[in-house]
Amino acid sequence: MSPKITTELLRQLRQVMKSSRYLTEPIQAYIVPSGDAHQSEYIAPCDCRRAFISGFDGSAGTAIITEQKAAMWTDGRYFLQAAQQIDSNWTLMKMGLKDTPTQEDWLVSVLPEGSKVGVDPFIIPADQWKRISKALKSAGHVLVPVKENLIDAIWMDRPQRPCKPLMTLDLSYTGIGWKEKIAALRAKMVERKVLWLVVTALDEVSWLFNLRGSDVEYNPVFFAYAVIGTDTIRLFISGDRMADPSTREHLLLDSSLEAEFKIQVVPYESVLTELQAICVGLSPKEKVWLSDKASYALTEAIPKAHRYLTPCTPICIAKAVKNAAETEGMRRAHVPKGSVTEISAADKAEEFRSQQTDFVDLSFATISSTGPNGAIIHYKPVPETNRALSGNEIYLLDSGAQYKDGTTDVTRTMHFGTPSAYEKECFTYVLKGHIAVSAAIFPNGTKGHLLDSFARSALWDCGLDYLHGTGHGVGCFLNVHEGPCGISYKTFADEPLEAGMIVSDEPGYYEDESFGIRIENVVLVIPAKTKYNFSNRGSLTFEPLTLVPIQTKMISVPLLTQKECDWVNDYHRKCREVIGAELKSQGRHEALQWLIRETEPITKMH
Amino acid sequence: MSPKITTELLRQLRQVMKSSRYLTEPIQAYIVPSGDAHQSEYIAPCDCRRAFISGFDGSAGTAIITEQKAAMWTDGRYFLQAAQQIDSNWTLMKMGLKDTPTQEDWLVSVLPEGSKVGVDPFIIPADQWKRISKALKSAGHVLVPVKENLIDAIWMDRPQRPCKPLMTLDLSYTGIGWKEKIAALRAKMVERKVLWLVVTALDEVSWLFNLRGSDVEYNPVFFAYAVIGTDTIRLFISGDRMADPSTREHLLLDSSLEAEFKIQVVPYESVLTELQAICVGLSPKEKVWLSDKASYALTEAIPKAHRYLTPCTPICIAKAVKNAAETEGMRRAHVPKGSVTEISAADKAEEFRSQQTDFVDLSFATISSTGPNGAIIHYKPVPETNRALSGNEIYLLDSGAQYKDGTTDVTRTMHFGTPSAYEKECFTYVLKGHIAVSAAIFPNGTKGHLLDSFARSALWDCGLDYLHGTGHGVGCFLNVHEGPCGISYKTFADEPLEAGMIVSDEPGYYEDESFGIRIENVVLVIPAKTKYNFSNRGSLTFEPLTLVPIQTKMISVPLLTQKECDWVNDYHRKCREVIGAELKSQGRHEALQWLIRETEPITKMH
Repeated sequence: MSPKITTELLRQLRQVMKSSRYLTEPIQAYIVPSGDAHQSEYIAPCDCRRAFISGFDGSAGTAIITEQKAAMWTDGRYFLQAAQQIDSNWTLMKMGLKDTPTQEDWLVSVLPEGSKVGVDPFIIPADQWKRISKALKSAGHVLVPVKENLIDAIWMDRPQRPCKPLMTLDLSYTGIGWKEKIAALRAKMVERKVLWLVVTALDEVSWLFNLRGSDVEYNPVFFAYAVIGTDTIRLFISGDRMADPSTREHLLLDSSLEAEFKIQVVPYESVLTELQAICVGLSPKEKVWLSDKASYALTEAIPKAHRYLTPCTPICIAKAVKNAAETEGMRRAHVPKGSVTEISAADKAEEFRSQQTDFVDLSFATISSTGPNGAIIHYKPVPETNRALSGNEIYLLDSGAQYKDGTTDVTRTMHFGTPSAYEKECFTYVLKGHIAVSAAIFPNGTKGHLLDSFARSALWDCGLDYLHGTGHGVGCFLNVHEGPCGISYKTFADEPLEAGMIVSDEPGYYEDESFGIRIENVVLVIPAKTKYNFSNRGSLTFEPLTLVPIQTKMISVPLLTQKECDWVNDYHRKCREVIGAELKSQGRHEALQWLIRETEPITKMH
Repeated sequence: MSPKITTELLRQLRQVMKSSRYLTEPIQAYIVPSGDAHQSEYIAPCDCRRAFISGFDGSAGTAIITEQKAAMWTDGRYFLQAAQQIDSNWTLMKMGLKDTPTQEDWLVSVLPEGSKVGVDPFIIPADQWKRISKALKSAGHVLVPVKENLIDAIWMDRPQRPCKPLMTLDLSYTGIGWKEKIAALRAKMVERKVLWLVVTALDEVSWLFNLRGSDVEYNPVFFAYAVIGTDTIRLFISGDRMADPSTREHLLLDSSLEAEFKIQVVPYESVLTELQAICVGLSPKEKVWLSDKASYALTEAIPKAHRYLTPCTPICIAKAVKNAAETEGMRRAHVPKGSVTEISAADKAEEFRSQQTDFVDLSFATISSTGPNGAIIHYKPVPETNRALSGNEIYLLDSGAQYKDGTTDVTRTMHFGTPSAYEKECFTYVLKGHIAVSAAIFPNGTKGHLLDSFARSALWDCGLDYLHGTGHGVGCFLNVHEGPCGISYKTFADEPLEAGMIVSDEPGYYEDESFGIRIENVVLVIPAKTKYNFSNRGSLTFEPLTLVPIQTKMISVPLLTQKECDWVNDYHRKCREVIGAELKSQGRHEALQWLIRETEPITKMH
């Protein structure tokens, strides 16, 4: 993988940073965040501005370009990948390491006195704006919103914003109709005494209206905003998508219905002016509810006295706690009809996946890596880096799909020859961590970050660790990464775990230039039965939804406790029962033989 | 224990809340926080305003009195005690439980429109002021500073502020002289580009000048502020204490020395006006460094543009990482000459402690509780509640002392008859949690809150838990509770653990009306040797400084893993070696026999 040569692009960008065509006054630095105007994690090609200017295309990273320097902040998942993709014009800022400066500290250290730093106000979340602005101000600089995006100004072949057809989801998938969802939402608004709610996250709009799209790869969402009033509903979306009869019927656009459920369809681009118009009409104590992660542009549109900001919108929380129809769907989606694909390569996996009922798309780019490529945590094979699988190297496959009934995400690490003692040792520590989380019992109301160390303890004991969180929320035929819950040492916006939430459990271990190991299941938070019940609080634990054998060849059994051995054997028994039955009914005898072989019980010698 | 009858006091307070003698306009609510003007946890009798108005005398709690209501917020350590000490005029607000409103939410729900809420600006930390003020404002109310303390106004027999003699500490105890400490501090100030540092925490002033006092019970500190400039040192303290020749000599008050180490002694009360005067003289970019937990009054005295607020001052962090002299002192202080006292009652324990070299005072009020009293987490025996120890009930002793070389804090739970199977089961879960933390290996830079769940895991597995943190920082002949590190699910101001820091490890289990169990050691953070060393980060673990047998009679050995058995046996071997040698040299044969009996190895049957 050779880095993108950015010398000319940076020259052009620095030119527009001084151009009176875009700016009233020159700026000395320009911030290029990762996201789009909806603060999405995965973004459409037209929004990949940071990748365009730098070459680094991982899912998380912020570029800052000054008159002399260019720097890229990213986290432990991307240290290796970013180092390979950026050229020598760039300095890589490894977040989470002790000596890495924050963006604002770095800016303060390199900027000439009294500098102006620019950023697109639609792309930067309001909370980040506030943090950076404050730090700059206290050092005598100023953060300014630059209306026209300066990357777009130099990006000649920038793709169009996608506008793909929508898919409607009926009650058998969603469990709750969109009118009911709106009614429940309005009840929450009354409780908090707010008159309006602005929905900016794409998966929240999708969930609310029981619609799905494909504007963003892997994420079944579409570009839209919604503004919900106490008796109005505005959907900001490119109008031609509302021409489709099934969408019109689903949203009851042509039916006569109660006024408060009548959806007004408004052009996508007009959200800012409409929001400003709403705010002009507010009486003194009337409030507008917005996520504190929404863009600075929309946040600023609401006068401070009328703003009601929270880390999670009520939709974010309602969406995280899956209802019975959703849980059942997620369970169905996790019974892969053809689980033998886990030992073949990424394309084959996709081919098999795509044959399954209700398949829509992958849920993220398949990570299929062997040997040293495995150490690049979010590696995606491309022709220049492609390595043949062999009997001498560890193979890591992290893949998932969007089905109409649910979203999957699974990682298995395998060896097709004889793993070394060290590889087995590391694999076993990762497995111990995976089991420690999966089998953990914890009180109702526990936040996910308090479970993160369970996944690391066995690695820590030997001086090892991994530089990513242990788990993320998983949407139901929605984004494979969703808030507000997760399992990570980062405590940011971590809502307590509740029965019905779905997260991943994916500890790993990565050795630069050698191999990568990760064991990932999607798990459902369920009530746990315990011997006692302190303070009548109730307890929770996890049920694995993913049912794919964990390669026992990679396990150093003496390192497991008896309890851990029992967990592996119980898990494999369940894989054999559920997946075996499916394979049998499909007459896939070879796959069934493989499954039985791979789920043989392991035994600890005494 | 009967509650304090507060009807008349509340009537008087509500009267002054409307009195033009203290207020330009009446207030509708008055907040009485726990602390003093230095945000101390333990406070002098003259500052026990919340205890005076309510009867509840635990170390943590906030009272709010409105025209009609009175409410008391406290945490899980004090639910039982507070319920016993407050009368029916009060509502107990159990913090940490799901349905308990925050102070600001409660105020908003009970106040009439457009209310004024008062608080003493010297007592409330600036961050709390900000939080409450913001919430009140957004609901149409206002928080106002009330200069004269309204509790003092009705407190007829309020004690005088203590002004006890000071003790000077030489280099053999402190390891570093005060001039060197000031020089290191100024280097930090240069690094952060601040001109002034205001020291408000009493233990920080004590540590900085290598002085100790006894103004506050158990905490060897004295009432003072310090303001450090780049070439000036101001110590705000009642002047007559500087009359003592040894103090004058220690601080070099009469020596001719470099101007930048000349200490100006200024009256304690003038800190606000002096700080205001300093701020008047500041040039635009000059900054004053202050803890963000300092009082609202001092914070407000610094104009916003000149404020440099951080959660920890550099003194707080320097103090937490003990140097070699301090670590050695803490080790010496933990070798009790007469450890048999742990099986006798609190007075006897104090009597024995006081006979030891370098004994100064207790480090907190001894918790000596038997049977149901043990469930009151911060119980202190008083004549009305005193229970005889018996062979039928669990006995809990939590005690510690201030020695010139260090501070101790230890809890042991014992049974003098035959414990029930359930009592042993619970004790063993607590022990497993204690060991899980004590033996944990974790990377350099790990924050303490990430270890908290290790202490709870065995309890959680059975549906049990305890409602307090697992550990707190421990000062070196300073406060037994000190920041900035700790081990708690609360993530507030949690600095990463570093070798040299000292914390407690004290999981527990408490059953209302039955018993309390806690096993507490003071432990030193030390480097750990691990098989591998990921990212060259290095690992840490804990070394117990406390060496007191853990009653094996209370252990249900089959519930322990082999590793846990080994830990108990290794720990007891060390107790026998270190304490045994001391007892032998003192000729305490009976105690030695007891020690040998109590440290017999335990064996797991196979």
